[in-house]
Amino acid sequence: MKVKERSGIDPAIQAYIDARLEEAKGDRRENRVTMVVFSGDLDRQLASLVIATGAAAMGMDVSVFYTFWGLGALKKRRRLKGKTLKEKMFALMTPRKLSSMPVSKLNFGGVGRVLLKSMMNDKQVTSIDELFSMAREMGIKFVACTMSMDVMGITQEELMDGVTLGGVATFLGDAACSRVSLFI
Amino acid sequence: MKVKERSGIDPAIQAYIDARLEEAKGDRRENRVTMVVFSGDLDRQLASLVIATGAAAMGMDVSVFYTFWGLGALKKRRRLKGKTLKEKMFALMTPRKLSSMPVSKLNFGGVGRVLLKSMMNDKQVTSIDELFSMAREMGIKFVACTMSMDVMGITQEELMDGVTLGGVATFLGDAACSRVSLFI
Amino acid sequence: MKVKERSGIDPAIQAYIDARLEEAKGDRRENRVTMVVFSGDLDRQLASLVIATGAAAMGMDVSVFYTFWGLGALKKRRRLKGKTLKEKMFALMTPRKLSSMPVSKLNFGGVGRVLLKSMMNDKQVTSIDELFSMAREMGIKFVACTMSMDVMGITQEELMDGVTLGGVATFLGDAACSRVSLFI
Repeated sequence: MKVKERSGIDPAIQAYIDARLEEAKGDRRENRVTMVVFSGDLDRQLASLVIATGAAAMGMDVSVFYTFWGLGALKKRRRLKGKTLKEKMFALMTPRKLSSMPVSKLNFGGVGRVLLKSMMNDKQVTSIDELFSMAREMGIKFVACTMSMDVMGITQEELMDGVTLGGVATFLGDAACSRVSLFI
Repeated sequence: MKVKERSGIDPAIQAYIDARLEEAKGDRRENRVTMVVFSGDLDRQLASLVIATGAAAMGMDVSVFYTFWGLGALKKRRRLKGKTLKEKMFALMTPRKLSSMPVSKLNFGGVGRVLLKSMMNDKQVTSIDELFSMAREMGIKFVACTMSMDVMGITQEELMDGVTLGGVATFLGDAACSRVSLFI
Repeated sequence: MKVKERSGIDPAIQAYIDARLEEAKGDRRENRVTMVVFSGDLDRQLASLVIATGAAAMGMDVSVFYTFWGLGALKKRRRLKGKTLKEKMFALMTPRKLSSMPVSKLNFGGVGRVLLKSMMNDKQVTSIDELFSMAREMGIKFVACTMSMDVMGITQEELMDGVTLGGVATFLGDAACSRVSLFI
């Protein structure tokens, strides 16, 4: 913030006030929401995207850090070539893309997902794929957790373009200056 | 905060100091806890109410935003009349009231819930229904997520009285000025 | 922070500035991360420890509050003697130690846990037991929720040494002055 000149105030006093205020500001929060998306459930992913796009629409900066099962949301395709046997098993046991994730409740072998999607569609609620595209267009920062990628054997080629790679320090760096931080 | 008159200070200087401090305060947090209760599990609902009533007892303001499966906590009755077939299926597949929600672990067809409740009762821990009533009496702000209500076909008549209706902007508005924000 | 003497400024003005700044600081946050670990899933426990040790490595203070199923992480042994029948059932139905917790996805009767651990091992990722020891050496504050201990009939002798006992007020006290608060 630029210090505006004020007539009638001794410049020494003004400098003192500004210096002391600057110190106090070291603690300032940005107008930011930071989320860890850990869950690979369709409904929790949906909730995270509703919050992310809502915050961006309100003019807030948003960082979403995808880790563990949540990472599936960033996959553009599944690639088995070059993976070890265990990595292949893992890849085949986890959903291939965001919209084929299960819901956390009412699963009944996929019935829950179909019912939830169908009801969202009836009510003209934006689908999860549309929400995700919207989020990307709004400039939301998507970070893929490199430790999870490493453990699960996911390569950067399997992820969407424009995704940042980062570790826990990336998340904490953003979270520490955020107004809101959530683990989903 | 009222600016107190101080003798011996030039009013221009005082005005400058106060104006600069007011700017810095734009970032001020309220003494508030804001939670999203997404989960429809009895144990997670219980944890959210323990935190909510604990915070209120410490003099903090509390906002609890119920979304998705969490919304069940605010239902006073189930109403099937006027619902579409899919909405009826959804209503019948989800618990009718807070205390009939399943626990997230040890479910075994309801055994977990009965065991947890019975142990809470033995230890004279306040039951979930009592905690909920306490929370309401303490002036905790309960918000029902309108998007979830819409998708699940839940009407305001099915919800308890005194519940506020709101969207993601309501949640973010409260969370952005809170000391603590949690997703449960 | 000590107020430094500045030449050329009226002491009355300086005192006024400092007093007003002190008021504004009442709201100051510590450089702290506070987590509630509610979940008894191996993968969520792992995520909480990665965040906790990462934050400590960045010089932040960390408080981890273990409640409900999460409390299992602090158990050093299972003790059935002196427990009521219900408490015994509960003890036998919950994992005996951190590394025997199930994973939230891909469980398949324990296959998920074995696969995840084996992959972590292949990638030379620190095991959960090592992470936990590291966290303790780094001075991370571990708090066991006394209400959960009471409900589940867990005594202090069953918990690791150096664990603090506390209630919801302990958690809220730390969370209210933290930069980041998470519910896991």
